[in-house]
Amino acid sequence: MELRLSGTGGQGLILAGVILAEAAGIYEGKRVVQTQSYGPEAQGGASRSDVIISADEILHTEVERPDVLLCLSQEACAKYAKDLKPGGTLIIDPLFVRDHSAAGGARVVAVEATRIATELGRKLVANVVALGALCGTTNVVDFATLKTAVLARAPKGTEELNRKALEAGYEAVRTKAAAAPAADSRR
Amino acid sequence: MELRLSGTGGQGLILAGVILAEAAGIYEGKRVVQTQSYGPEAQGGASRSDVIISADEILHTEVERPDVLLCLSQEACAKYAKDLKPGGTLIIDPLFVRDHSAAGGARVVAVEATRIATELGRKLVANVVALGALCGTTNVVDFATLKTAVLARAPKGTEELNRKALEAGYEAVRTKAAAAPAADSRR
Repeated sequence: MELRLSGTGGQGLILAGVILAEAAGIYEGKRVVQTQSYGPEAQGGASRSDVIISADEILHTEVERPDVLLCLSQEACAKYAKDLKPGGTLIIDPLFVRDHSAAGGARVVAVEATRIATELGRKLVANVVALGALCGTTNVVDFATLKTAVLARAPKGTEELNRKALEAGYEAVRTKAAAAPAADSRR
Repeated sequence: MELRLSGTGGQGLILAGVILAEAAGIYEGKRVVQTQSYGPEAQGGASRSDVIISADEILHTEVERPDVLLCLSQEACAKYAKDLKPGGTLIIDPLFVRDHSAAGGARVVAVEATRIATELGRKLVANVVALGALCGTTNVVDFATLKTAVLARAPKGTEELNRKALEAGYEAVRTKAAAAPAADSRR
C-alpha cells in the first residue's frame, strides 16, 4: 500500500508520515519505507511525505501511484491527485481543497480536519485528525496501533489532546460512511 | 552526499534526519531525499534515518554506501560501519560505541554527544549535539542554515537549549580538529 500525505509546511505532515510508518513498522512489524523529498517546490512551502507499507520486503522506495492521497492544500491536490491509482482514495480537508476534479473517479473523502482541530483548541493537531480519518477510511493500520504510535510521539502534556484529535478524525469518517454513503462523492 | 544516522529508538535520529534534510532542501534549495526504513530490526529498537543531498535531481533514493555515518549505538556501528564509502567519515558517541573496527580505515570522529547534552540539562538533545558535530565534521550544510532548521523545529521554550546543543557539538569537533588532528584515529 502506497500513501502520500501532502500540503504545506507547518501542517505537520512529516510527523504524520513518521507516526503512520511507526504504527505499521514498529508496532505491527510490517516493512515500511517513509520518505520526504525536497525539491524547488519545498521553498514555495509545499510539503509531502510518502509511506509504503508491505508485508514483504520493499524493493522500490518511491511512491509513484499512491493508493491513498491526503491533501491539505489546493496546490497539493492539483499536483498529486492525477497520480492516484485507479480505485484509490483521496482524503481532503474541504477548508483548503475546493476543487478535486484532478482525482477523476477516485473515491473522495472530505474530513474537516482543521475545523475539528480548532474546536479541540489546537489547530496544530489537524494532522492527527487527518491521520484518524485516514485510518478510518483505509484501515491501513489498526486503529489501536495507530493510537499507540500517536501517543508515543505526543509531547508530554498533549497526550489527551492528541488522543481526542485522532478519535475525532476516525469517528468523522466512520459516521459519514454509516450515515450517508453518497456524501463522499457529492461534487 | 549520502548520510545515515543510526542508533536506537528514542535518540531522536528521525528528527535529526528531518532537520538535516530541511536545512539542505528548504533553506539551501538543494534536492534532498530523507528516508526511514522499518523492518524486523525496528521492533528490536534499532532506528535509522537516511539523507541524500544533491545539487541535481536524485534518481536513486536508497543509501547503500554512505559518505557519512553517525552511530549512537554499538549495534548500529556493528551493522552499518562496513558499508561506509572508502574515505568516508564515521561519527560516534564513545559512550555507546566502544568498538568501531568494522569501519576499517574510515576517518573516525568521536563526539560525546550524550555527555554534552546531559551537561546542558537535557539528555534528549544529544541528537542536536550530534547534528552540530556532523556539520562541523563534514560541512554538508552551512552551519547557519542548520541552525535555522534546528530552531524552526525546536518546541517553544527550548530554542536556547537547542541552539546551545548545536553549537556545542559543532565546537567539540572543530576544537578537536584544530588541537589534535591525530586524535580521530587513535584506535
